[in-house]
Amino acid sequence: MAAWRERLAGVRGVLLDISGVLYDGGAGGGVPIAGSVEAVARLKRSPLKVRLCTNESQKSRRELVGLLRRLGFSVSEGEVSAPAPAACQILRARGLRPHLLIHEEGFSFQNMNKAFQVLMELENPVLISLGKGRYYKETSGLMLDVGAYMKALEYACGIEAEVVGKPSPEFFKSALQEMGVEAHQAIMIGDDIVCDVGGAQRCGMQALQVRTGKFRPSDEQHPEVQANGYVDNLAEAVDLLLQHMDA
Amino acid sequence: MAAWRERLAGVRGVLLDISGVLYDGGAGGGVPIAGSVEAVARLKRSPLKVRLCTNESQKSRRELVGLLRRLGFSVSEGEVSAPAPAACQILRARGLRPHLLIHEEGFSFQNMNKAFQVLMELENPVLISLGKGRYYKETSGLMLDVGAYMKALEYACGIEAEVVGKPSPEFFKSALQEMGVEAHQAIMIGDDIVCDVGGAQRCGMQALQVRTGKFRPSDEQHPEVQANGYVDNLAEAVDLLLQHMDA
Repeated sequence: MAAWRERLAGVRGVLLDISGVLYDGGAGGGVPIAGSVEAVARLKRSPLKVRLCTNESQKSRRELVGLLRRLGFSVSEGEVSAPAPAACQILRARGLRPHLLIHEEGFSFQNMNKAFQVLMELENPVLISLGKGRYYKETSGLMLDVGAYMKALEYACGIEAEVVGKPSPEFFKSALQEMGVEAHQAIMIGDDIVCDVGGAQRCGMQALQVRTGKFRPSDEQHPEVQANGYVDNLAEAVDLLLQHMDA
Repeated sequence: MAAWRERLAGVRGVLLDISGVLYDGGAGGGVPIAGSVEAVARLKRSPLKVRLCTNESQKSRRELVGLLRRLGFSVSEGEVSAPAPAACQILRARGLRPHLLIHEEGFSFQNMNKAFQVLMELENPVLISLGKGRYYKETSGLMLDVGAYMKALEYACGIEAEVVGKPSPEFFKSALQEMGVEAHQAIMIGDDIVCDVGGAQRCGMQALQVRTGKFRPSDEQHPEVQANGYVDNLAEAVDLLLQHMDA
C-alpha cells in the first residue's frame, strides 16, 4: 500500500457506512462505536463532503436518523443514502407491484415459501434485494443478513436477484452525485470487505475497512478484495484523512 | 435419443424417487400419483430389482413407509435409501456432534441465525445438507426445499456444504450396492432433473424424468442435464421397461 499521504491527499468526499462503523445495533437500539460520534463531528466541521451510505433496510431513514441522534450523532435524513427509497424509484419506474419480505419476522419458512411461490408463478420473475450482505454485527453477535435469503430464493427459483444498495454501482454513483464529488475524489469507509470496500473500488473510489462491526481478521487476506487501507475504527480513519488531505 | 429398446434392454435394476413419482405429499399425508401403486407392484413382480431412493428428510423411513402403505404401495423399510441414516453414519465415523435444523418449523429466522452463529464460531465449520433440492411438490403447490437453506448458510458463512443424499455419487453408489446392480445396468426414475436425473447419470446410470411432481416443461430444455427419456408418469416408465427389457 502506498503511503497515506499519497492515497488521501486528493480526497474531497467521504462515504460512511453506518452499522458497524458509527454504531453496533442491538437490543435497545445499539451503542455508538468508541470515538465515532466525535469522528463524524470532526469530519463535518472539515472541508470534506460527507454522506452516509447504508444498506439498512429494517428501519426507515427517519427511524435510523432518530436512533443515530439519540446515540449522539449529528446527522439528518437528507445526508443518508439507503436502498429502500432507491427500490421505490425502480418499482415506480417499471410499474412493478411488490411482494415484500421484511426482516426478521418475515424470514419464516411460511413467508419465504410464499415469496418463492409468487416468483415461480411469474413469467418474468423479478427479485430485488436491498443489499446482499452475508451478515452484520449486533451487540449480541453476528446476525444473518439479507444476502443469505436472496441466495436462497435465487437458487430455488433459478434466477438472479437485482441488488439495490451496496455493492451495486448505481447506488454508489447516486450517493456520489448527491455529494457532488467524482469517484476518484471519494473514499468509502465501511466494515464489509465485499459490499463496502469491493463495491466502492469497482466504482473507482478508494475504500478503507474499519476493524469494527462485522470485521474479521481474515478480511485482511480476502481472496478478491484488498482495501486501500485498514484502520482500527472510524476515529483512526478520520485522523488520517484530516492529517493527510490537501489543505 | 436412441430407441427405447436400445436404452432399456440391459436394465437390471430400477431406482425410484418417491415424492413426485409415487405420490404427491400434502395435507393429510398426500395422494398417490395415478397409476403408480400398480406400477410399483408390476415392477416388483418383474425380474427387475427395485429400490426406493429418496431425499425425504422430514419423515423417518418408518413414517415414510407407513404413509406409502396407507396409500396402497407394497414397500418395506429395507427397500428405502434415505439421507438421514447415511448422515448418521458420517457423524459417527467423524465423531461430529450435530446442531440440527429440521424442516419446516426449524427454518425460522431465529433458528437459521443460530445455525449460522454456530458455524461461524467453528474453526473448521462442517455443514451437512440432506439433499440440495430447490423445491418439491405438494398437493397445494411447489414448496421451497432444503437446498435453498443450504445455499443461504453457504453464502453467509463462506463455506461449501457436504450434500448427503441425491445427487451425491456416494448416495447413489450405496443404493446400487444394496440392490446388487452395476451402474450401467441401472436406471433412475425421478421428477428432479438435476438431483435425480443429473446425479444418476454422473454415476453412470441412465435416468428418466417423469412429468409428475415438481416436473416443469422447461426441464426438457435444461441447459445442463438431458434425461435418457421423458415419460408422463411412473406407469408409462414401467410399461416401457417391462416391454423392452431383455426377457
